[in-house]
Amino acid sequence: MREPKSVVNLRAMKKASIISIGNEILSGQTVDTNASYLSEKLLSIGIAVVSSYTIADEIDSIVRSLSLAGSDAELVLVTGGLGPTDDDLTRQAFAKYLGTELQLDNELLQKIQIFFTSRNLQMPEKTKIQAYIPAGAKALANNLGTAPGIMAEVKDKLLIALPGVPSEMKQMFEESVLPELQRFAGGQAVVIRKLKCFGTGESNIAELLGSLMQRGRNPLINCTALCGIITLTITATAKDKDKAQQMAEKDQKSLRNRLGELVYGAGEQTLAEVVGQKLAQQKKTIAVAESCTGGYLAKLLTDIPGASRYFTHGWITYSNNAKTSELGVPADLIEKHGSVSEPVANAMAQGARKRAGTDFAIAITGIAGPAGATEQKPVGLVYISVDSDNSCQTKRFIFPHDRDSIRLQAAQTALNMLRLKLHIC
Amino acid sequence: MREPKSVVNLRAMKKASIISIGNEILSGQTVDTNASYLSEKLLSIGIAVVSSYTIADEIDSIVRSLSLAGSDAELVLVTGGLGPTDDDLTRQAFAKYLGTELQLDNELLQKIQIFFTSRNLQMPEKTKIQAYIPAGAKALANNLGTAPGIMAEVKDKLLIALPGVPSEMKQMFEESVLPELQRFAGGQAVVIRKLKCFGTGESNIAELLGSLMQRGRNPLINCTALCGIITLTITATAKDKDKAQQMAEKDQKSLRNRLGELVYGAGEQTLAEVVGQKLAQQKKTIAVAESCTGGYLAKLLTDIPGASRYFTHGWITYSNNAKTSELGVPADLIEKHGSVSEPVANAMAQGARKRAGTDFAIAITGIAGPAGATEQKPVGLVYISVDSDNSCQTKRFIFPHDRDSIRLQAAQTALNMLRLKLHIC
Repeated sequence: MREPKSVVNLRAMKKASIISIGNEILSGQTVDTNASYLSEKLLSIGIAVVSSYTIADEIDSIVRSLSLAGSDAELVLVTGGLGPTDDDLTRQAFAKYLGTELQLDNELLQKIQIFFTSRNLQMPEKTKIQAYIPAGAKALANNLGTAPGIMAEVKDKLLIALPGVPSEMKQMFEESVLPELQRFAGGQAVVIRKLKCFGTGESNIAELLGSLMQRGRNPLINCTALCGIITLTITATAKDKDKAQQMAEKDQKSLRNRLGELVYGAGEQTLAEVVGQKLAQQKKTIAVAESCTGGYLAKLLTDIPGASRYFTHGWITYSNNAKTSELGVPADLIEKHGSVSEPVANAMAQGARKRAGTDFAIAITGIAGPAGATEQKPVGLVYISVDSDNSCQTKRFIFPHDRDSIRLQAAQTALNMLRLKLHIC
Repeated sequence: MREPKSVVNLRAMKKASIISIGNEILSGQTVDTNASYLSEKLLSIGIAVVSSYTIADEIDSIVRSLSLAGSDAELVLVTGGLGPTDDDLTRQAFAKYLGTELQLDNELLQKIQIFFTSRNLQMPEKTKIQAYIPAGAKALANNLGTAPGIMAEVKDKLLIALPGVPSEMKQMFEESVLPELQRFAGGQAVVIRKLKCFGTGESNIAELLGSLMQRGRNPLINCTALCGIITLTITATAKDKDKAQQMAEKDQKSLRNRLGELVYGAGEQTLAEVVGQKLAQQKKTIAVAESCTGGYLAKLLTDIPGASRYFTHGWITYSNNAKTSELGVPADLIEKHGSVSEPVANAMAQGARKRAGTDFAIAITGIAGPAGATEQKPVGLVYISVDSDNSCQTKRFIFPHDRDSIRLQAAQTALNMLRLKLHIC
């Protein structure tokens, strides 16, 4: 059997399987964020999630998923179905799977009653069911709600049921479950480092990294791409944290060496954040002039707290008149070359920098679509110009996909052009 | 066996099972939004998702999940694992499950080559694998990327593989898969209608709707909230489509009556879309002047194709100088009241409308945080001004939560103010 690309030397790690209960998830009304939260938490203590199931509020299905998950992993985490209503069936399913009965836990019943009385509320009769847990199982305290969790150990397997409400689930997991799992995990330390790249595709990265991305390697290097941003995740597994840290940092260095300027940052850094830091460090200022991106570039720049240190002016010159009146782009230039052209991109950038009196100005003009394309100028055609006191650099791109993604790629690519320029400065 | 609470009479409906492939999901790096998208779409054509699996990029696990899903449902939808890298194994797993071999499809290969040549790019060798599909299966065109989908029919079951990239998956599903599934569905008709509201909270909506939101009611009315946008989903189930349609539309009317101007649109409409339609219908134009939102408002307006019909100018006057030089806000006004104040918001809106020569102008100035707050001016304080030939209306808000959410709430609230103004016009 081959190793998944994900993260770890599975053989050395404990395995977990996650079950999410709820028709609201299956019917698409709710996006399940609990599973990804739990996966990250488990990974950080050296437990790898190997499968996850989403199941309807229906006893037999839940019981079946419990045995499926139990065959995948030593740890089974269930979220949802612990509420007081008739369609909350997780605790019944647990009892059925464990071959036991539900028992009233008087201590739990008191806690639940106090939850209501302390809020001057009458306890609804239905809520009483939440004081029942399978015989032999352990109740987990819920300090935010009335639904207790359930923990049961069968042979070498650990079964845990948590509430579906994210806030209650997280609180219970961190307070009552995590400590239990530390000992369960068996001392494997996992350290995760992320590198962020921009300016090439996944397959090119894969070719540049070659054997480093081999499946089963430790540290394991995993590559994901989203709208041009490529995230390389380095996951090092070792007996102790220091060792894992060393391994992860060693790989981080060699990736940086191989990828050079393609790497723009680390961790969760965005291009706008990195560019902003460079501008602030170098005490430089920037203005933007946008057409097809319609404010997207300025929005990304000002997403960053403290952007006012370097960002001063932005223009969204969506109409040709605006390009002329606000940025001084000659009308006959637009007439001659069209508003989506290299000369107009130049003139927008130069006009913006002159008017704002900044060190840099970026201009973007293009066809985001779906309409507006011609024989010579397809949807996705974008000119990006970066003007500074020593040069005005303009590039032509054809970005794939739809309007949203074309606009985002254009804005990100503009930030990346400025990043490389600042790099040289 | 009991019915799930969700929405439908499962016995009468076709069943589907969804498999999401990818370690980035299992390791919690990515939240899987494809499954919920597919669930909603399937439900709308009378197919109920009864289970969903998330599986590692590992052939045997994928093959096993295919037989599990196949035992749950007549329709199995797989997303992810169709990329060009070594850890994309869905097409190999399909072949193994179907007991066939992968075959080179020369037509596909050409399409993929064209994708690269049309962008003046060299096709990486690894990409070639995407031109292979299991013998006897049908390839589904991918107009946004290089990964084709796969459709295979075995006995009474339909197996479909789609790309993991949401934009490519959605486009392929809607263009190539949905039509196929219409005939496949049959049975119970489910009609889903959505109403979009802005300007109040979930609990207030719940009180206004009262018994209409009762669980188990048909049509079922479900309420979700995201950054101030409240979505009411009406799901009507009946023997035939006409009946379900009547039921859904009857409810839609009574909701509109109860909620009045709180309802801004239907379906997937955004505030920017509705405002844009009104502007286009009334042949009015708009300019914006943004400070703390830094282009977010303009970005939302220009997210909408055809925005150039009504949106002409935008200014991001982030510095005080910019407010004065670009919009003519008197420096002493800023000096006296501060840049986050009602008079400055007025002056920005009036200056923008005058300079752009538009029918309307919106100005936003505020403190998005985390820094910049004072005793009198807390983080979240925002002034929004809407200027038109007959009035200049300015409102003061204190928005909760963090920088991102404050900026989004400010931009959406500005759009809503304009919507209500256009409503009256």
